[in-house]
Amino acid sequence: MTFQKPTIPKGSRDFGPSEMAKRDYIFSVIKTVFKKYGYQPIETPAMENLSTLLGKCGEEGDKLLFRILNSGDFLSNVSGNDLKSKDPVKLINLITEKGLKYDLTVPFARYVVQHQNEITFPFKRYQIQPVWRADRPQKGRYREFYQCDVDIIGSKSLLSEVELIKIADEVFNRLGIKVIIKINNRKILAGIAEIMGQAEQMMKITIAIDKIEKIGLDGVKHELLEIGIPQSSIDKLLPILTFTGDFEEKMFLLRDNLSSSKIGLQGVYELETVREYLSFFELSTAVQLDLSLARGLNYYTGAIIEIVAEDMKIGSICGGGRYDDLTGVFGLKDISGVGISFGADRIYDVMDQKDLFSEETSQVTKVMFVNFGEKEEKYCLSIIEKVRKAEISAELYPDHSKIKKQMSYANNKNIKFVAMVGEDEINENKITLRNMTSGEQIRLTLGELISKLQLE
Amino acid sequence: MTFQKPTIPKGSRDFGPSEMAKRDYIFSVIKTVFKKYGYQPIETPAMENLSTLLGKCGEEGDKLLFRILNSGDFLSNVSGNDLKSKDPVKLINLITEKGLKYDLTVPFARYVVQHQNEITFPFKRYQIQPVWRADRPQKGRYREFYQCDVDIIGSKSLLSEVELIKIADEVFNRLGIKVIIKINNRKILAGIAEIMGQAEQMMKITIAIDKIEKIGLDGVKHELLEIGIPQSSIDKLLPILTFTGDFEEKMFLLRDNLSSSKIGLQGVYELETVREYLSFFELSTAVQLDLSLARGLNYYTGAIIEIVAEDMKIGSICGGGRYDDLTGVFGLKDISGVGISFGADRIYDVMDQKDLFSEETSQVTKVMFVNFGEKEEKYCLSIIEKVRKAEISAELYPDHSKIKKQMSYANNKNIKFVAMVGEDEINENKITLRNMTSGEQIRLTLGELISKLQLE
Repeated sequence: MTFQKPTIPKGSRDFGPSEMAKRDYIFSVIKTVFKKYGYQPIETPAMENLSTLLGKCGEEGDKLLFRILNSGDFLSNVSGNDLKSKDPVKLINLITEKGLKYDLTVPFARYVVQHQNEITFPFKRYQIQPVWRADRPQKGRYREFYQCDVDIIGSKSLLSEVELIKIADEVFNRLGIKVIIKINNRKILAGIAEIMGQAEQMMKITIAIDKIEKIGLDGVKHELLEIGIPQSSIDKLLPILTFTGDFEEKMFLLRDNLSSSKIGLQGVYELETVREYLSFFELSTAVQLDLSLARGLNYYTGAIIEIVAEDMKIGSICGGGRYDDLTGVFGLKDISGVGISFGADRIYDVMDQKDLFSEETSQVTKVMFVNFGEKEEKYCLSIIEKVRKAEISAELYPDHSKIKKQMSYANNKNIKFVAMVGEDEINENKITLRNMTSGEQIRLTLGELISKLQLE
Repeated sequence: MTFQKPTIPKGSRDFGPSEMAKRDYIFSVIKTVFKKYGYQPIETPAMENLSTLLGKCGEEGDKLLFRILNSGDFLSNVSGNDLKSKDPVKLINLITEKGLKYDLTVPFARYVVQHQNEITFPFKRYQIQPVWRADRPQKGRYREFYQCDVDIIGSKSLLSEVELIKIADEVFNRLGIKVIIKINNRKILAGIAEIMGQAEQMMKITIAIDKIEKIGLDGVKHELLEIGIPQSSIDKLLPILTFTGDFEEKMFLLRDNLSSSKIGLQGVYELETVREYLSFFELSTAVQLDLSLARGLNYYTGAIIEIVAEDMKIGSICGGGRYDDLTGVFGLKDISGVGISFGADRIYDVMDQKDLFSEETSQVTKVMFVNFGEKEEKYCLSIIEKVRKAEISAELYPDHSKIKKQMSYANNKNIKFVAMVGEDEINENKITLRNMTSGEQIRLTLGELISKLQLE
């Protein structure tokens, strides 16, 4: 019998020990910070009913769903005529009723509605789980990947926006990633469209403005004309697009320009309040006002936040905003919230490329005891018991293999110290400890060994 | 528009903050111990190719698979005749090619074969991930649940069995669960069948012996006769079944009784070696030899291990054994290994029923600052920044709600301390700290507050 090497579905990944160590490190930093600010974890199932998932992200979203074939006789609901029709759209709903979640937001909304009577609002939750999308796999885009969301819902306080910005700043500071934090507000974008006399065209105008870095000011003007925005309206936009200066100067000019738009002024007020609250915190980086920031306009109603890594053309590594109606689609109205989402895969790539993972991240075992034979291994068992009692990660090589093989095992596993206990050591009641990086060897008592390893 | 409260698929669960805190606690204890012994984590995708999953656990196993409908036009491979046949067995393989993993063992075997050139053997890995089974849901049995496996593969050393027993002992000791650790060896079961002159009937004999606690000695005899084991063979079994005494006495009698069976004596040798190695470690509980222990006979080839909670009729909370051919089914021969699996759901139930979770498990926030209004909240922001700098989890209630509502939020969230900073406190440059359990209130400087919270 011949075998083909087994594979995994395209767009999915195995994480080996070294990747897991790095990923765990990222998640553990993120969780530590979340908890420090009072956020609690929840988890929802991988599968949701299709009635929960369908129609929440348009037809395109529905196509990204992995559907689960009904168990048992999946054809029991299907008539001969249904089959004859060979109509996939009709058949699919007869043979599937569950799907894999494609994001954490829809299940979270479902969770809040389903458990509304158990939840204490404002509800500060985080959720770190895989999601699945039947997308075309490509570099950096996977069919199974982790999302990492943190939200406060049930409060309209702008303190929440501030808290999430502070959290993101602290996470990236701890990870050692230099970032740029950009903020905008949908109400300002609405105000701009309003003073242009084009309130209805807000989306299109914003999408054009969003391209300013790529196509320049003239490009934006050109695009606006093309989509039918009159020159007179564009003239009102130009002073805003050419604002220079710091956050405060921009806010001053904005307030001036948007003075005739109620919603615009509300946006200015919100941004100013966020900025004032932020001033009570030390941030690693100044928050920048970016009027071209327009992510998530389909659902964000207030603040829009985006964080990119400095000097990296990798796109956003964290982003989010305020939404006024998370749960309405499931029948629970007026639940306002604000949330951000960390892109674990991109954060991983940034840290890997910038060499930000410390050597220790992938070190599990602190010391490996060489196995010289039956007599020595028994002797080592009592020693290793005491080393582990001191909470030092230790292992005894399980076989009487050649020393070279054992050393190479320690090397491959990135183990920093190797302990050798042969006949001499047993007679002397000592242990020879080898530093695998420097090659230095010293002979120590058990007590000295433990003290040394605890310091390393 | 009216809405039905959304639900989740039957057999699946949401985990809210309080359950998550307890589950995270269990997993974190388990991971800490795994790492202390040099085990490294891996993760594999939720979806595997059906070619990997099918046929690994018999027809019954295949029926437990959740299959993923092919994306895009799932009917593209299906002819009109295929449809007309209305044959689910035929159709199912035309419209699905991926499934959700139903255990961690098969994906691990697949992982080892696929990545054999990157892995340093012996490979000590753990894996904590959800698995899915299209089983009939019932109390304590879910369609999505976590498995938590730890294995050493690529070594035949009996030190590995010993290490895993030691790990289990340490995990349950840390969790505060009193357990009974039972061990057996398939080779002894084979030896027993052999001296009965019924080597071929080993499985059936073992299944009968396995029932001894339920049906008694006479019941076992009766069952053996019924399946056609002659009385003369049963007579040879009886002295073994009626062994009394401790581990050593049983081993002595076993060696005597199995002296004519080579495989039986090999089993005795293995058990004795494991027992000798174990004597170098301090265990919280003595390991018991249980000749009726017969789990996993389809794949275990040496040691069989099972752990149950004392005084709980909940079944096994941890179990495993030695397998000599994990990866043969994928074409990689002679990879021996040993592994155990922790039942997270049952461990959770034991701890919940025995009240073993400490109050602190579910405490995320150490101190909540009451929000008295605009002036006070700003003052609190600078204070809270310093409290968090000391790595104390703290939050400021985001809204200017009634004090009663804020207090009830703190209570529901199991927050131990509430800090109050009103006009008096601002003037005095102090903070009033309320212990939510005792009701005691004291007024402290910021420095005193931080010191107190760090100690609590």
